[in-house]
Order: sequence, then structure tokens, then C-alpha cells
Amino acid sequence: MNLLLLLPSDKITEDRYRVRGSQADHIRDVLKLAQGDTLAVGLLHGPIGKGRLESIDAEGVVIRVEELTGPRTYPVNIDLVLAIPRPKTLRKVLMTCGMMGVRSLHVTRAYRTEKSYLLSPMLQPENYTPYLLDGLAQGEFTRLPEVRVHHLFRPFVEDVIPVLPDYGRASKLMPDLLPAETMDAVVGKPFPAGVMLAIGPEGGWVPFERELLQRAGFIPVKLGPWTLRVETAVAVALGQIELLRRMSE
Amino acid sequence: MNLLLLLPSDKITEDRYRVRGSQADHIRDVLKLAQGDTLAVGLLHGPIGKGRLESIDAEGVVIRVEELTGPRTYPVNIDLVLAIPRPKTLRKVLMTCGMMGVRSLHVTRAYRTEKSYLLSPMLQPENYTPYLLDGLAQGEFTRLPEVRVHHLFRPFVEDVIPVLPDYGRASKLMPDLLPAETMDAVVGKPFPAGVMLAIGPEGGWVPFERELLQRAGFIPVKLGPWTLRVETAVAVALGQIELLRRMSE
Repeated sequence: MNLLLLLPSDKITEDRYRVRGSQADHIRDVLKLAQGDTLAVGLLHGPIGKGRLESIDAEGVVIRVEELTGPRTYPVNIDLVLAIPRPKTLRKVLMTCGMMGVRSLHVTRAYRTEKSYLLSPMLQPENYTPYLLDGLAQGEFTRLPEVRVHHLFRPFVEDVIPVLPDYGRASKLMPDLLPAETMDAVVGKPFPAGVMLAIGPEGGWVPFERELLQRAGFIPVKLGPWTLRVETAVAVALGQIELLRRMSE
Repeated sequence: MNLLLLLPSDKITEDRYRVRGSQADHIRDVLKLAQGDTLAVGLLHGPIGKGRLESIDAEGVVIRVEELTGPRTYPVNIDLVLAIPRPKTLRKVLMTCGMMGVRSLHVTRAYRTEKSYLLSPMLQPENYTPYLLDGLAQGEFTRLPEVRVHHLFRPFVEDVIPVLPDYGRASKLMPDLLPAETMDAVVGKPFPAGVMLAIGPEGGWVPFERELLQRAGFIPVKLGPWTLRVETAVAVALGQIELLRRMSE
């Protein structure tokens, strides 16, 4: 935990928050903070800053927010389209989305995914939100990624994606196992304000899906000579996007 | 499993291998292959190619190697120096090393690591090798990463690293949380044949360690604006190295 995330529900007075449970345990037992110590805090969907530990009691830890320095979001709006993986992998991707500042996660069915995964309890907000929050606390971001579930692939790609905010030229990328150009050859200049990234299932998209995605503007890219696990492909793609973004500055 | 790895101990005749256990289960129950079907195979530390399923019995699956097309290694020799993480994280990094074609993994003690981690059973070859093999089978590589454990940081950095094969100019990188240049500004051209990457513990290297590493030739780089988990930092760094390698071609 590199940032203590303060939720609206933690608020007790204008500048005081009471955190409980695992966050309070972490402050007490891992960080070993005492009254008067400070730590990095962030208000959910708001600015980050500094908090001071005011008191520790059986109910939790009271933090007074002393200084807010402004919001912290990843400078590119990243929207991730993800063929629904098994729940264990989904949890890792959720965490990565929070940690790497992804704006939204669109989970969708695909031919090579198991239908039952879409019925997973992990797709309920009360179950997936903790993983997003963990990711935010690790990556030091405060904007909770938005999660949407699309039960049908074709209507999602044909009807939903086109009405999402415009991504500009060459800003929808589809990392693929087939031979393709690397990201630098594909991403438009100046670096786009938003990038949509479509990560297929283990085994990849089937030709029909690949075709629909390309028709919707996704450009195949090759991340490297490896066949990566889904959670690794997400991290590697986001890392390459970041490098290109910085190189275009 | 994208590649069935055949070990010397699986060999029964010149071109026949018998695989057992989880590999055999995977072939039978997940891939649902039958007699006569083919699959991608790789000989450990050797070439990859095609194998044909000759028989399935209670003892396992017999594969006849039909075609070997040559070795498959990642085109840059990557050597990873890793401050020993907790065992759960180490397992993920081991898997990633196999999957992304890392040549060697140097696990070392650091100030901010727990001393007890160096006594973890996970550092025994019989315990870590399965994770490396899983990674190879996923990433379709055959060269098993070499794992070395260094119980003392300073002698490792001062005495061992300098006698490792020469990395050339600007090919030792130290992803850091402090402000630093991005990888493209640092990596020498033409792209080096070998890259050594030093990944610190959660919380980063302490100043003393950072100084020793820099004296040993490591250049701080910034992967991005996030604070990543160790296993994600490894994947992101390797992804950025790959993008730069391709861009330098």
C-alpha cells in the first residue's frame, strides 16, 4: 500500500476519515505508524495529499487530511477491452487496472472464453471493487476504473464501441499473436489522448472476432515474440504505451 | 501450455518421449488430443518442432518428435537481478522469466527484503524449476533460465557482476521509483546483445544499494508514473526492452 485511499464512507468530519479493517491493520501492523505520523493519502476520485494519524482505537484509525496537492491520473485515457478470463486471472487484471491507472475495463464474451465465466460472482461490484482499490493504493492513483460487462461480443463491438468518445486515428490497438507491426509503427502522432486496447482470450480471438474488431478500428500490434498470459499481456501493453507516450513528448 | 516441453528424462527411444503427470493430463483432458494428432513440442535447451501423439496409456502419453525446426530463444540475453521477494511473488517472477525468455535470474538479498526469504524452500531447484518450465511452455521457449542465489548484496554487486560477460555500454538498467530518464534515452545503440536488469524490493533499493549498483554500471530508468508490484515491474521492463529492440532494427 503506497497510498491510503480514503472513501466517502470513511469521512467523519470535513477533514477527518476513519479507516477500518485491513487498511487500519496495515497502518498499525505493517507501517507501524503512531499518533502524529504522516502518510500519503488519496481521496477516491479526488486529489492525493498528506494525512496525519490522529488516533488509533478499537474502531480503526483516524486520519486528518492536512494537505491535498491535486489529482493524480494516468495521462492517457486507457480503456481496456478484455475477453473474460477465468476469475483468478480477472482478479489480477483488475488489480493491474487500478495500479496502472486504466480508465475503464470492458469485459466481454468471446468465442474462446467459457460462457460460465460471465456468471462469475467476481463480476459483481462488491467483489471486484476491492481489487481495483488495492491496485489504486499500490499504483498511487485515485480514480476507480469503471467496469462494464458485455454479454454479447458482436453488439458490443458494432454498437457500443462506435459511440464511445472518439479515440482519434490509430488509437485502438489489438495485441495479437499473429505477425503484426510493433506499437511504435502504428500509434498516431501526436500521442493520442485515449487508447483502447483489446486483449483476447488465451488462444487469441477467432478470425470472426478479429475481423469485427478491425472493422471497428482496432489495429493489430505485436507486443513481442512471446505468447503471454493474459495478465502479463495487459501489463506489457500498458508498459509499451507508456514508453511511446514519453518518447513522443 | 502452448509448447509441450520434452525433458531428457522423458526420452524412451531416439525420437520418442513419454510424458506423465500434469503434462499428460493437459494433453488428454484440456487439449483433448487423440492418437495421430500433432502438437508443438520443444526439447529442453534444444530446438522446437512438431510432435505426434503415438499412444495414450495409464503410464502417460507417448509423443514421437517428427520435425525439429531449430532453437527458439529470446534475441537479447536478459539477466535479471532481483531483490528476493516473498515466495508468492518469486513464483510469479520465475514463471515470467520462463515465459519471456530470460537467460538468468540472480536472486539477492537487499536491505528492505526479509532475511528469512533467502531460506525459503522455493529457492531449491526442485521447487522453482516447475515454475520456470511452466513459463517456457507458455512463452514457447526451451532454454531454462539459470537461477543463482546471492546471500550477500555487496560482494555480489562488487565481485560477481563485474566478472559476468561484458554487457557493453548502457546495458545495465535499474528501474527506479525516483525521477530518471526513460529507457529509450539510456539504452545504447545498436541495441545491446545483453541487458542486465536490477529490480529492487517493494519500497525500492536503499541509497547505499543504489550507489553500489550505479558504481557497477547500472543506470537508473523510470518505467512510468506508477509504483508497480515487483512481478509487474519485471514484465513491464521486459516489454519496454522488447519495444526498443524492435525499434532499433
